[in-house]
Amino acid sequence: MFENKDSSHTSIENLGEFGLIDHLTKNFKIKQKSTVKGIGDDAAVIACDPKEELVITTDLLVEGVHFDLSYVPLKHLGYKAVIVNLSDVYAMNAEPTQITVSVAVSNRFPVEALEELYAGIQAAAQLYNVDVVGGDTTSSTTGLLISITALGTVKKGAAVYRSGAKENDLLVVTGDLGAAYMGLQVLEREKEVFKVNPNSQPDLEPYSYLVERQLKPEARKDITNLLKELEVRPTAMIDISDGLSSEIIHICKNSEVGCNLYEDKIPLDPQVIATCEEFNLDSTTIALSGGEDYELLFTISTEDFPKIKGNPHLTVIGHITDEKEGVHLISRAGTKIPLIARGWNALKNEE
Amino acid sequence: MFENKDSSHTSIENLGEFGLIDHLTKNFKIKQKSTVKGIGDDAAVIACDPKEELVITTDLLVEGVHFDLSYVPLKHLGYKAVIVNLSDVYAMNAEPTQITVSVAVSNRFPVEALEELYAGIQAAAQLYNVDVVGGDTTSSTTGLLISITALGTVKKGAAVYRSGAKENDLLVVTGDLGAAYMGLQVLEREKEVFKVNPNSQPDLEPYSYLVERQLKPEARKDITNLLKELEVRPTAMIDISDGLSSEIIHICKNSEVGCNLYEDKIPLDPQVIATCEEFNLDSTTIALSGGEDYELLFTISTEDFPKIKGNPHLTVIGHITDEKEGVHLISRAGTKIPLIARGWNALKNEE
Ligand SMILES: [Mg+2]
Ligand SMILES: [Mg+2]
Repeated sequence: MFENKDSSHTSIENLGEFGLIDHLTKNFKIKQKSTVKGIGDDAAVIACDPKEELVITTDLLVEGVHFDLSYVPLKHLGYKAVIVNLSDVYAMNAEPTQITVSVAVSNRFPVEALEELYAGIQAAAQLYNVDVVGGDTTSSTTGLLISITALGTVKKGAAVYRSGAKENDLLVVTGDLGAAYMGLQVLEREKEVFKVNPNSQPDLEPYSYLVERQLKPEARKDITNLLKELEVRPTAMIDISDGLSSEIIHICKNSEVGCNLYEDKIPLDPQVIATCEEFNLDSTTIALSGGEDYELLFTISTEDFPKIKGNPHLTVIGHITDEKEGVHLISRAGTKIPLIARGWNALKNEE
Repeated sequence: MFENKDSSHTSIENLGEFGLIDHLTKNFKIKQKSTVKGIGDDAAVIACDPKEELVITTDLLVEGVHFDLSYVPLKHLGYKAVIVNLSDVYAMNAEPTQITVSVAVSNRFPVEALEELYAGIQAAAQLYNVDVVGGDTTSSTTGLLISITALGTVKKGAAVYRSGAKENDLLVVTGDLGAAYMGLQVLEREKEVFKVNPNSQPDLEPYSYLVERQLKPEARKDITNLLKELEVRPTAMIDISDGLSSEIIHICKNSEVGCNLYEDKIPLDPQVIATCEEFNLDSTTIALSGGEDYELLFTISTEDFPKIKGNPHLTVIGHITDEKEGVHLISRAGTKIPLIARGWNALKNEE
């Protein structure tokens, strides 16, 4: 049963379900003092701090829908699967503390492939200081699927919802937008080139920032602290997973307000601008609909503007209006264009 | 885009990801006072009670591995997917409070199929008094996959682990064993009969208990309270998902003890005994390895025996020994047979 002709390809069947989880998580360390019991029982046990509230969020990544293993290394995939969940925790103004990780995988993946995946999960858990406290590993009849649930804590009453934006508030975004989507375009082009000529040596150097944003995104763990230091409490907040446009619409719908977004204020990296030109794509459209940027979008009271003014991480891109005024993009030419949720929709990507 | 020739088969594409979640969960009500914010933001927010600890557990169910839609109605599947998680919460001596539900589904399922699935999820959530506070709905390239995470609360320090069993403790099981597995055998036989003769009318009446245990299992929500009333605190506890044999081994391994299990004490329903005879299967083997019973297995100090004696829900099936004595089944004939974990292994069920 434990025979292996090729020692670098161990079948997952050889380890069994229990052996597999133990094997994959044996190097994972518990660091959060709130983790009373991690992996290894029917459930994990977490201590409660009476001064805090808990947040919980979950995300599912499916092969062939959310990722393509022909250009996403498994280690990066594991890392990204953690990041997309932590980003939602930060978007509540909370600090992530624990995650559970469930993986369904077909027999075409050897144990070594799962080790790579879990190495990425561990790397993210370490950098973001979260404990992996549970999970499930099972077989699938086809591809790979990762389901992660993240827990976090926030000072009681300090959670920031999508629903708190008020008329005249300023709309602020962290970092820059559109790079992850353009990274995907570059990788997909290389995949097509490779199909035609398997000896081609892609030069990804001019696209390094884009490719990194796509393959190894980070969540904005710095922003919660930055805002605390600046003594700014956002009135509403969301993270940008589906594209700026659909996230603005979420805030407006939940807060029952309108919004004017200024095209010339949208922060773009020079690589995004150059690559959009090369691909003959409109960079504003990409920033609005690209998604997977994992930046934070929030609203602040105008009184707080002096506190954030000039901060290199934060850009004011619009302001909140009365609901009746609707949600609009004000173009560079001054035209008012209704904003629609064209964000990437997982359910429409399927044939 | 919203055209529908057959109004009873709405394509999930027509609703989009956000519309779909809203649609499926619109009747879900929040009942737990600890749920500060449910579905509808980046994360749910849960209040912490300083007198309590939190438990968290997660389970993944994959079509073709854990269930076969040719005989499992979607409503039952949704119900069962919740139950398997709640069972783990009860196994910690905790009360379930919230769940998140993620579903990956291919286009071959119309919206009506997902409505059925969510109706089952809602039915279980209602009966067990848990709030559905989050989740994710996405497409899959093939089958159906359900990932549920459950939260629960337990009085601080009152969680019962697998690791607390002591020499001389009694091994106790709730309910009876093997019925869910025999229900599966009956359903699989009917499926084969149906393939040969699609007009056959199966008479499932003699197997009603077995089929119900397979298709609509319940978690033992009564036991935590019963034990509290009896003033019995288990020294170790686990739920029976993979079969009595492997769960006993988990307790023994984690508690560093041995165990003698008595064959003649294992509680079996008359339908299990009769159907095992009909299928020419050994009922002890089925109870040991069948799995999916979702009963609770726990150990108690011998001092507590008078408190549970004669209780119709509880059966003493063995006692804990020194680790050196190993883990054994004492057969009806008095023979000592080493117990091995032959519990159902999801990773080996794949071809
Ligand atoms: Mg369990
Ligand atoms: Mg989000």
